[in-house]
Amino acid sequence: MSITALRHAAYAALEPHARKHHGLSLVNKLLVICIVVAAAFAILETEPELITSRQPLFRTAELIFGAIFTVEYIVRLWIVPENPDYAKYRFPRLRYSVSFPAIIDLLAIVPTFVTLGATGGGSLLLRFFRVLRILRLAKLGRMSSAWRDLSSAVTERRHELLLTISIAGIVLLVASTLMYWAEAGAQPDKFGSIPRAMWWCIVTLTTVGYGDVYPVTLLGKSLAGLVAIAGIGLIAMPTGILAAAFSDVVQRRRAEAAEAALKDDRG
Amino acid sequence: MSITALRHAAYAALEPHARKHHGLSLVNKLLVICIVVAAAFAILETEPELITSRQPLFRTAELIFGAIFTVEYIVRLWIVPENPDYAKYRFPRLRYSVSFPAIIDLLAIVPTFVTLGATGGGSLLLRFFRVLRILRLAKLGRMSSAWRDLSSAVTERRHELLLTISIAGIVLLVASTLMYWAEAGAQPDKFGSIPRAMWWCIVTLTTVGYGDVYPVTLLGKSLAGLVAIAGIGLIAMPTGILAAAFSDVVQRRRAEAAEAALKDDRG
Amino acid sequence: MSITALRHAAYAALEPHARKHHGLSLVNKLLVICIVVAAAFAILETEPELITSRQPLFRTAELIFGAIFTVEYIVRLWIVPENPDYAKYRFPRLRYSVSFPAIIDLLAIVPTFVTLGATGGGSLLLRFFRVLRILRLAKLGRMSSAWRDLSSAVTERRHELLLTISIAGIVLLVASTLMYWAEAGAQPDKFGSIPRAMWWCIVTLTTVGYGDVYPVTLLGKSLAGLVAIAGIGLIAMPTGILAAAFSDVVQRRRAEAAEAALKDDRG
Amino acid sequence: MSITALRHAAYAALEPHARKHHGLSLVNKLLVICIVVAAAFAILETEPELITSRQPLFRTAELIFGAIFTVEYIVRLWIVPENPDYAKYRFPRLRYSVSFPAIIDLLAIVPTFVTLGATGGGSLLLRFFRVLRILRLAKLGRMSSAWRDLSSAVTERRHELLLTISIAGIVLLVASTLMYWAEAGAQPDKFGSIPRAMWWCIVTLTTVGYGDVYPVTLLGKSLAGLVAIAGIGLIAMPTGILAAAFSDVVQRRRAEAAEAALKDDRG
Repeated sequence: MSITALRHAAYAALEPHARKHHGLSLVNKLLVICIVVAAAFAILETEPELITSRQPLFRTAELIFGAIFTVEYIVRLWIVPENPDYAKYRFPRLRYSVSFPAIIDLLAIVPTFVTLGATGGGSLLLRFFRVLRILRLAKLGRMSSAWRDLSSAVTERRHELLLTISIAGIVLLVASTLMYWAEAGAQPDKFGSIPRAMWWCIVTLTTVGYGDVYPVTLLGKSLAGLVAIAGIGLIAMPTGILAAAFSDVVQRRRAEAAEAALKDDRG
Repeated sequence: MSITALRHAAYAALEPHARKHHGLSLVNKLLVICIVVAAAFAILETEPELITSRQPLFRTAELIFGAIFTVEYIVRLWIVPENPDYAKYRFPRLRYSVSFPAIIDLLAIVPTFVTLGATGGGSLLLRFFRVLRILRLAKLGRMSSAWRDLSSAVTERRHELLLTISIAGIVLLVASTLMYWAEAGAQPDKFGSIPRAMWWCIVTLTTVGYGDVYPVTLLGKSLAGLVAIAGIGLIAMPTGILAAAFSDVVQRRRAEAAEAALKDDRG
Repeated sequence: MSITALRHAAYAALEPHARKHHGLSLVNKLLVICIVVAAAFAILETEPELITSRQPLFRTAELIFGAIFTVEYIVRLWIVPENPDYAKYRFPRLRYSVSFPAIIDLLAIVPTFVTLGATGGGSLLLRFFRVLRILRLAKLGRMSSAWRDLSSAVTERRHELLLTISIAGIVLLVASTLMYWAEAGAQPDKFGSIPRAMWWCIVTLTTVGYGDVYPVTLLGKSLAGLVAIAGIGLIAMPTGILAAAFSDVVQRRRAEAAEAALKDDRG
Repeated sequence: MSITALRHAAYAALEPHARKHHGLSLVNKLLVICIVVAAAFAILETEPELITSRQPLFRTAELIFGAIFTVEYIVRLWIVPENPDYAKYRFPRLRYSVSFPAIIDLLAIVPTFVTLGATGGGSLLLRFFRVLRILRLAKLGRMSSAWRDLSSAVTERRHELLLTISIAGIVLLVASTLMYWAEAGAQPDKFGSIPRAMWWCIVTLTTVGYGDVYPVTLLGKSLAGLVAIAGIGLIAMPTGILAAAFSDVVQRRRAEAAEAALKDDRG
């Protein structure tokens, strides 16, 4: 097998758009599993009770995943000329290396090497890089064709959704001010300022309701009841907008399919 | 540039309906930012921990925003004759000054001047005016065209939404009475009257669930489970109604656009 | 004005179906207000802090509302022969007095007379009748035409909604058993039996989350996370079903209206 | 009545697909009641306060239900040759006995016999079999025709629903990491690792909000507010997708019915 054929095969294995079949190639499936397992290790590594005696295990896993993703990064760089989107440029690999997915890929392998050379001091900074590593999962987003439908539904109704958020913001402001006015006297530590009342108000409007803050006066409870009912509306509005948007996308898809079928019949 | 041309330019810059382009003019964008920042300052000003050493900063910010909104109010009054809605009246500026948006604009600048001359005593009253100041944000509502779609969807289904609220009210009454009957003996301070049971009932029906009040008897817990499940219905009903309403608006919009396109083809 | 004309006028004033105009007659509007105010009094009467010094006020209000509803009941009995649904029977008033709305009307006035003659002992029984009194509000259900749309949407999808409830029931059983198995050792008082675990499970599946019971073990928390996510589905399923049902009703209404308009054009 | 006719009658009584009428046969209705009551007994049996003095009652109930389900199992095995799906095989009863519903039926009667012979030691294992017994209720799933509509709606949109779960997973990872970073210093026992922060994050994203864990720092509360608002989206997305899917299924059903009616008219 020549080097060109190998490069082409690697391109077909790594780039979902290059395949004729639906779904992911075996290589991409293995990479997804690696990303998920590496993320799981990165999450578990922060648990003090777990790490104490298993430091070498986590170190080794880190090294293995770091090596896999480094090889992946180098191979992706190597196969760039196969990609028609980059082949037209003069330095396709340089061009690719400054693209958004390539930078995320690079940032995802940085923590491995930094951790290797790091001593106690830089741990807080490394933690931040470890957050970026989780972004490897964002690659999953490339894969599904459902993504296009969902994003087009959200994009088409972005004005309505923004308006709902604006209304929610005004409700939040008004409700927080009223609750501050009603409860500040009884619970100065919890409702003693509008920002403090806003914490209660967000927790109530989203119907989370931790119970760390709740009104105790009659006026406060009456207002809180209204805010909780407004929270129902806050959930109902975006849900209704998205339901209508998805319904619209589904119908348009069907109409397009019917038209295409009609053309095929005539053609 | 003549004074008439300047007034016309000011009108075009301030009145969204006067523009041909979609979106907001630069002046309006700056005003929106001012309103949001001024609201943020008004909110933060109530926080005792924050204000102590920063009183002069908040005083200055208050003065600057007060000045900006005062100038805006005067300019809006000055450009009224450019507005065809008011130009037809004999005293267009007087007529405008008693309109709803103009009164809100005026109330929004009152606190600045009142705060300046106020001493310790009138703080509670001023707090009330500070609430109105947040209404400046209501101006944001003028801006989006999505507002019309949302409000027409809500307006068309207002009977269904009102009916849902009525059903929720009856459920609230029945559930509160049953819980009062079931739990009053075990927790007289929390379920000792129907109004007290209603507080629990609203918190449960809206699925907020603070946890300050919850049933402890077997009968109370069984009833509470039914109320919580009814709460799902309370969320599902208005969401479903709004989803259908939005879907209907979207389809009507599409049918109108298709009809208009058909007319254009024939014309 | 003759007695027959008066009876006819009373019938037109009390029976919503007898009116040509939409909305409620003045008499019915006043009755709705009376029902709401009487319900408010009945609710407030249970609050011990409120009642102590105001006993005579509540006694008087009780008497007034009792008198109003007694007069209403007698008038409704008197006007029965005007109602074509009952006029066909031999004893229309007797027939009406055993109908469901008439029995509710009667039960709604019973507490007034029973309270008058009651001494300390029968208070618990009276409380139960007071619950029925709240059912007066159910009369509101007669009024809106939106009721038909909502109930037809729910009725048409009753099988799907029942199925969702069945699935939720199975999820509840499985989840409660698993949580009992996972948490019984750590928290025997809270998860020591399946019925106890079911209380936690209902509170979690409906996303109420009081916080009186929550898992503490790792296995329990992992299971609880899955149950909470299943709760999202439990909200999403009926909401989606109702949204589709309302959408369907709206479209059918529109198609009928379009057909009727087409017929009018041809006719 | 011959043995063949009896077997045929038993088949018609037990197998819902064998009936021409909609709904369940009397025998199946009784079996459903038995399953529900047996499940209720199995649930109540785990409650220590209830069981102490009523051990013989639960023992007897266990025996009766075990006998009923054993007879049912034997009869189902006996009538297999009546079922065209299995009659084509050489050993229809053997084939049936290894089918999924038959294995569940068998597992459902195992606990009865195991409990009879069991002494103290094997109780933990038996508990596990008792969970499977609840699966008898899964038989209910066979019955409704609404099942097909619901499952087709969910199946058709499985990619969109999976994508929503993936997005929720990424939000969960990012939010947990940020909260761990923001709150680990203030509450090391509650946010001291990403897995601990994930518990908080799931409870917040699903809007359950127990209140056992909540942020206390300003940064933590600000992030928590954003997570809670993202939780609204997490509920709105799948609800919207399902609403559109159900709406689509309803319309397709209607179009099919209209086409079938058209064919009948022509035929």
